[in-house]
Amino acid sequence: MITRPHIEEAARRIAPHIRHTPVLQLPVQALGTPCDVVLKLEQMQVSGSFKARGAFNALLQSRAGEAGVIAASGGNHGAAVAHAAGALGIRAEIYVPAISAPSKVARIREAGAVVVQGGATYAEAFAASEARRAETGAVSVHAYDQEEVLAGQGTVGREFEADSPGLTHLLVAVGGGGLIGGISAWFAGTAMRVVAVEPEGCPTLHDALRAGGPVDAPVGGLAADSLGARRVGSLMYPIARDVIRDAVLVPDAAIREAQQRLWTACRAVAEPGGATALAALLSGAWVPPEGARVGVLVCGGNCDPGSVVG
Amino acid sequence: MITRPHIEEAARRIAPHIRHTPVLQLPVQALGTPCDVVLKLEQMQVSGSFKARGAFNALLQSRAGEAGVIAASGGNHGAAVAHAAGALGIRAEIYVPAISAPSKVARIREAGAVVVQGGATYAEAFAASEARRAETGAVSVHAYDQEEVLAGQGTVGREFEADSPGLTHLLVAVGGGGLIGGISAWFAGTAMRVVAVEPEGCPTLHDALRAGGPVDAPVGGLAADSLGARRVGSLMYPIARDVIRDAVLVPDAAIREAQQRLWTACRAVAEPGGATALAALLSGAWVPPEGARVGVLVCGGNCDPGSVVG
Repeated sequence: MITRPHIEEAARRIAPHIRHTPVLQLPVQALGTPCDVVLKLEQMQVSGSFKARGAFNALLQSRAGEAGVIAASGGNHGAAVAHAAGALGIRAEIYVPAISAPSKVARIREAGAVVVQGGATYAEAFAASEARRAETGAVSVHAYDQEEVLAGQGTVGREFEADSPGLTHLLVAVGGGGLIGGISAWFAGTAMRVVAVEPEGCPTLHDALRAGGPVDAPVGGLAADSLGARRVGSLMYPIARDVIRDAVLVPDAAIREAQQRLWTACRAVAEPGGATALAALLSGAWVPPEGARVGVLVCGGNCDPGSVVG
Repeated sequence: MITRPHIEEAARRIAPHIRHTPVLQLPVQALGTPCDVVLKLEQMQVSGSFKARGAFNALLQSRAGEAGVIAASGGNHGAAVAHAAGALGIRAEIYVPAISAPSKVARIREAGAVVVQGGATYAEAFAASEARRAETGAVSVHAYDQEEVLAGQGTVGREFEADSPGLTHLLVAVGGGGLIGGISAWFAGTAMRVVAVEPEGCPTLHDALRAGGPVDAPVGGLAADSLGARRVGSLMYPIARDVIRDAVLVPDAAIREAQQRLWTACRAVAEPGGATALAALLSGAWVPPEGARVGVLVCGGNCDPGSVVG
C-alpha cells in the first residue's frame, strides 16, 4: 500500500527535478462553474503533464544500466520518461501506439529518446515493450501500475493540500488511474472527497467500480491519446474503491468546451485529458453539494496550442 | 506622485475583481536562461493582461454616468476597460487603431463594448476618442498616463514582492510605461532594480532616457500592437528616471524565441509584448550580474494561441 510517508519521501526525492506547479483561484463568473474553483496548473509541469513526477520517482530508485529504460505510453508518460531519463543521463526507448498525437511523439524524440511506434492500442505497445525489455535487460517504468509511479503522482495531492487548504472536493481525470490512485492515497483517512472524471469513451474506473474490480473498458473519443488505458491498474483499485465517492462520465463536447473556456478565461492551454476534470463541473455531470470548496486538476497540456480555440 | 500607500489602496479596491496571478520558479535549464528565474504569469489575468488592474482602479473611482467610459487602445487596454466596464455595469466605447490584432478587437466586442476602429496609430485613435469624449461627457481611462492607472499597475509589483521575496532584479516590458511606472513606484527607495525591456521597433523609454524626457519614438515590429505607444507618459517618467537602472532593446527574433520557449518549456502562451521581458535574458541584451535573483513579468497573452509555435 502507498501511504503518506511514501509520498512525502517521493516529494523530497523528486523536488530538484520537478516543478511545484501553481494554483489559480477563480470565482464562478470566470469559467461559468456552479461554484468558485481552484485550478492546479499541472499542465505547466516539466514534460507538459503530471507524469514527470512518477517517472522521476521511479527512475531515481532504479538501477538502469547500459540498456537504459523502456516504457510504453500513449504519449504523456513516454514524454515524461524520456525527459527524466535525459535529465538523469539514462538511455530511453519508448513504445508508442499508433493512436498517439504527433505533438506528443515529437516531444519524446526531442527529449532524446528512441521512439518505437506501432500497435493499435496502449496494450499492444506495452506487450512489445515488455518483449524488448526481456531481451535487453532494460529497466521499465509502468505508465500507472507501479508503486513508485503512484507515490510520485501522489505528490500532486500533497502540493494541492498545502497550497489550497480548506478544499472539500478534488476533481481528477482518470485513464489508467495512477494519478487518482496516488492522490487518493494522500487523502485516505481525511475528509477530502476525490471525484473521478472520465470521458464517456474511456470509462475504465467507472466500469471497474460497477464490476467490483478492474475490467477491460472501451477506448475511444477525444481524450483517448492520454486517458485511453484499457483498464485501471491493480494497485490503484483498492485505494480508489475506499476513497473515491463519485466517478462520473463526461461527453467529448464538454471536454472541448472546457478546453475553450480555459483558454478564453485564463490563457491556459489544456489537452483534452487535461480539461476533462473541469468538464464535469461545466456539463453538470458532477454537481457540487452546498458549501463545497472545489479544486480541479488541469493535468496535461501536450497538444497543438491552436487546437484549443474555435 | 504615486507611492506605496496609493498602491496598497488600489490593491484593496481591485481585489474583488482581479486575479492574484501565480508565479512559477524555473531553473536555468527550463528556458535556457543564464540564471534561475521566477516568472509572474500575468497573462492569466482577467482580460488576458495586467491592464485590468489599472482599468478597474480607475473605473471604481470614476463617476461614469449614462455616457459611460471611453478609452483608446492598441488592444489590451481596450479589452481591460471593456471587461471592467462590463463587470461594473458601465457602457464602454473603445477607439482602436487599425494596427490592432484581430483577436484583441474580437475580445473587446465580446466583453460588450462598442468598438470604433480607425487611425493608423495609437495617437490617432486617442485623438478621436478625446473628441468623442468632449462631445458626450463620458469619462475616460488613459492607457497609461493617469494616476489611477499607474497605481493599479503597481499592484503587480506588490504581489511579485509578496510571492517571491528575495528577488534583486525585475524585468518588465515597456510600451507607454504605465506598468513599469507603477512597479517602479512600488519599489522606489528599495534595493530592487527594475530593468526596462523594449523591442528595437518601439524604443519609447530608451529614447526618453537618452533625451532626458519623453520624446516621440518609432512604432514598429512584432510587438507594436501592445507596446507601440508613441512616447512614454509624463507621469511615469520622473519615477522611471530615478528607479530604472537599465533600459535595454531586444530584436523581434528574440521575442519570437521567448514566445516559443515559454510554450515548449512551460505551456505558457504569451503575446509578443508579453514575452519581451524574457527576450532580454535569452538574447543577452541584459546580462544578470553575479548573484542576481531575477523575476520576469509575462504581462499579456492576447494572441492566437497557435501563433506561439513554429
